[in-house]
Amino acid sequence: MRIRATVAYDGTDYQGFQRQANGPTVQEELERALERISQEQIRIQAAGRTDSGVHAEGQVIAFNVEWRHALSDLHRAMNAVLPPDIAICGLDLAAQDFHPRYSALGRHYRYTIYKAPVRSPLVRRTSLHMRQRLNVPAMEEATRLIMGEHDFATFGRPPQGDVTVRRVKQAGWRACAPWLFFDVEANAFLYRMVRSLVGTLLWVGKGRLTPDEFGEILSLRDRSRAGPTAPAHGLSLIEVKY
Amino acid sequence: MRIRATVAYDGTDYQGFQRQANGPTVQEELERALERISQEQIRIQAAGRTDSGVHAEGQVIAFNVEWRHALSDLHRAMNAVLPPDIAICGLDLAAQDFHPRYSALGRHYRYTIYKAPVRSPLVRRTSLHMRQRLNVPAMEEATRLIMGEHDFATFGRPPQGDVTVRRVKQAGWRACAPWLFFDVEANAFLYRMVRSLVGTLLWVGKGRLTPDEFGEILSLRDRSRAGPTAPAHGLSLIEVKY
Repeated sequence: MRIRATVAYDGTDYQGFQRQANGPTVQEELERALERISQEQIRIQAAGRTDSGVHAEGQVIAFNVEWRHALSDLHRAMNAVLPPDIAICGLDLAAQDFHPRYSALGRHYRYTIYKAPVRSPLVRRTSLHMRQRLNVPAMEEATRLIMGEHDFATFGRPPQGDVTVRRVKQAGWRACAPWLFFDVEANAFLYRMVRSLVGTLLWVGKGRLTPDEFGEILSLRDRSRAGPTAPAHGLSLIEVKY
Repeated sequence: MRIRATVAYDGTDYQGFQRQANGPTVQEELERALERISQEQIRIQAAGRTDSGVHAEGQVIAFNVEWRHALSDLHRAMNAVLPPDIAICGLDLAAQDFHPRYSALGRHYRYTIYKAPVRSPLVRRTSLHMRQRLNVPAMEEATRLIMGEHDFATFGRPPQGDVTVRRVKQAGWRACAPWLFFDVEANAFLYRMVRSLVGTLLWVGKGRLTPDEFGEILSLRDRSRAGPTAPAHGLSLIEVKY
């Protein structure tokens, strides 16, 4: 049977989602847990290959497994076997042709900034600490320019092929002191696109770029014109839409 | 000159606050940072010796140091040198006779419970995950019985001497789904008293004790009658009052 599951993880101690030669990955831990439980070798597919250090509250995975008990037992067994920094939030049957990446219609990411004079040890793993004053209205004005369909080549490389056009459905900043959240939803994202957007929008917030200059940079489709890629630990994959 | 500072830390990776033979402690890290900055050997005093795994948002420390620059430079230098899981939130001159423990009039601790069907990797370091339904009104009723001055021998041993009477000034539960907070302020606490209170109040929440039975246990002054000591990682020292 084919299973679809929602996964949350603290990405701090992983080399990203996708299995690779060096270092622990979230995929490896999930597959190891499934193999322990089912005694089968299982390969999972995921909606998004989050980078090293990026978190998830709503990553979606799918896999095929022989399972004769209740699905709630599989759910519980996985959470019992997985390490504390990975959890299965929900688990259900899926159609045989369901693929978490190809079936997805949209992804929602959130970037979290902790704006305070002093860094906080208790939120350091899941937010970027910033001391500087930020011009949030200017950041919001620049953010409106990414809404809709654009060629985002300035802000990232495609994970495969060469199409760099993406459709941003929602994007905005929300201040709730000491927090500042950037929420963005698109049909799909280029590699490191959210972090590159955040880094460049922070240039706008610091007055290094005007919103108009941000718009020019977007239209140049030149990767070298983007601001710095914001650190991974502020980013989380919140939800995948189908 | 004598300095008073407020310290926040994620206690997960420390063997508690107080310096000891085995394993890293918060005190050791603070003293090492001060010694690097001042080139002197410095001993600090603290308001509370938090246990292994317990956090702080408002621990208070004091120390003597020779410092010829601005205090804001000392503050910045300490945060630059300390590890990411410890930070100095505030720093100021203190009277020569200020002692963070003996001068303190009250301590405020918070215990955080994450009440949800599935554990969360992103808040696992700073909250206790619970699945069970809890009777919060019963827990609140029992909590009212600890208000004021009582002999709390049931809930802990004194850190020194043999007096087990303490005065609870504030204590209460606050539900804000999926969170459940227990805030308690007293003139001082016995060793493990907050965690022992929480563990026993959770027995009330689960229906294993009535509020009246909780009151009897309090009046028995018998350590063996308390419920289990709640895990350290839900507890944080929020504020020390002078």
